Amino acid sequence: MRKLEVCFSPAIYPLFKNDNAIVVVIDVLRATSAICTAFHFGVKKMIPVASLDEAAAYKAKKFLVAAERNAEIIPGYDFGNSPYSYMTDKVNGETIVITTTNGTQAIHAARDARQVVVGSFLNLSVLASYLTSQESDVLLLCAGWKNKLNLEDSLFAGALASELLKTGSYAHDCDSTRTCSILYKEAKPDVYGFLNDSSHRQRLAKLDLEKDVRYCLQVDKAPVIPVLKDEFLVKMDL
Amino acid sequence: MRKLEVCFSPAIYPLFKNDNAIVVVIDVLRATSAICTAFHFGVKKMIPVASLDEAAAYKAKKFLVAAERNAEIIPGYDFGNSPYSYMTDKVNGETIVITTTNGTQAIHAARDARQVVVGSFLNLSVLASYLTSQESDVLLLCAGWKNKLNLEDSLFAGALASELLKTGSYAHDCDSTRTCSILYKEAKPDVYGFLNDSSHRQRLAKLDLEKDVRYCLQVDKAPVIPVLKDEFLVKMDL
Repeated sequence: MRKLEVCFSPAIYPLFKNDNAIVVVIDVLRATSAICTAFHFGVKKMIPVASLDEAAAYKAKKFLVAAERNAEIIPGYDFGNSPYSYMTDKVNGETIVITTTNGTQAIHAARDARQVVVGSFLNLSVLASYLTSQESDVLLLCAGWKNKLNLEDSLFAGALASELLKTGSYAHDCDSTRTCSILYKEAKPDVYGFLNDSSHRQRLAKLDLEKDVRYCLQVDKAPVIPVLKDEFLVKMDL
Repeated sequence: MRKLEVCFSPAIYPLFKNDNAIVVVIDVLRATSAICTAFHFGVKKMIPVASLDEAAAYKAKKFLVAAERNAEIIPGYDFGNSPYSYMTDKVNGETIVITTTNGTQAIHAARDARQVVVGSFLNLSVLASYLTSQESDVLLLCAGWKNKLNLEDSLFAGALASELLKTGSYAHDCDSTRTCSILYKEAKPDVYGFLNDSSHRQRLAKLDLEKDVRYCLQVDKAPVIPVLKDEFLVKMDL
């Protein structure tokens, strides 16, 4: 049986490190949703960087750069964390550098894994199908919020875990996986409502980003798999 | 409003450190249940130590020592982690040194907090009542299993959080608290059944410790509050 685990925080990723696992990085609101959207709209390559210093260095070299901290775009940069900003022909064929509060930190933490892919509700089915087609263990790495658990990433981990467990190919001897599956079962009838009082929903509501939230919770709207190749994210050939 | 947070792993305790918080250390199966039971049966003082080396040093000095790793008593010591081993007059008035896989590590992590108390289903009501009588924030520190989340500690955190939130005195801007509350709501009708396939239940079942599990999930059977004073646990005067 393949192993399936959920890690709630990049801070404890070393406890879960598994050379046989494909790591799915999850930051539903909004980094990994934005990345899936960007590739769905034709972005050729994304360069995830952990620090604002690295982002600034790329900006100085005339790259397109997405830079977000605490849910807001950093002034002077081309994109923030909104999936809507990528829904334009202008991104087609482009390379975009990206740094976000949590999501790119999680990608950075997992960079030495056997394979790192990007997950969100927007690519749920294609991702579940790819993972089950592989003979690998799976580690769902939630970006969380500043290394603490968050509800929306846990929910998506539950949604993806439920799909994987249906196949009967994964043992889940992991209480985190159980917790996420229970959350998702509870939330499934109304994910948007379920997240109503979550910490990050409240943060985004203050910034008038409800439209982003509604988009990010839709299933299969961007059926692509961003995958880390060396230092870059590219779209996996399916 | 007072702050209420849940930390799922001693490994990320530094992210939650809060000088205004009383820390409740939780290791339901079985360290904190055993500690509550020991004080209920008259133990005078317990000395939690993190390492087996420290435990061995106390043993050499003729102390009574409880030493458990991976759910089993270490050969040559006086007690393991079973609450039943403390249900005897022999412990009355005694000092007992204790080291366990997870629980004493969590106590050790939190030792600099404003106050550290020990929580389990066995002292749920008296603990909820004490915490609400104080003007402090509350941090529920789950010992987990080797720094990963476990279901039974999360459930108890949910049970205690639910009691505290009822008072209306605590803001819970914490997705971990929400997660635990949801788990507890789901589990409440049958906590024992809910934990049926949890990782640690399975570990204990292999060791024929189901009787311990059933005892540890009972509410208010040991209505005492063990509290850390300097390096020792003592029974709080209520």
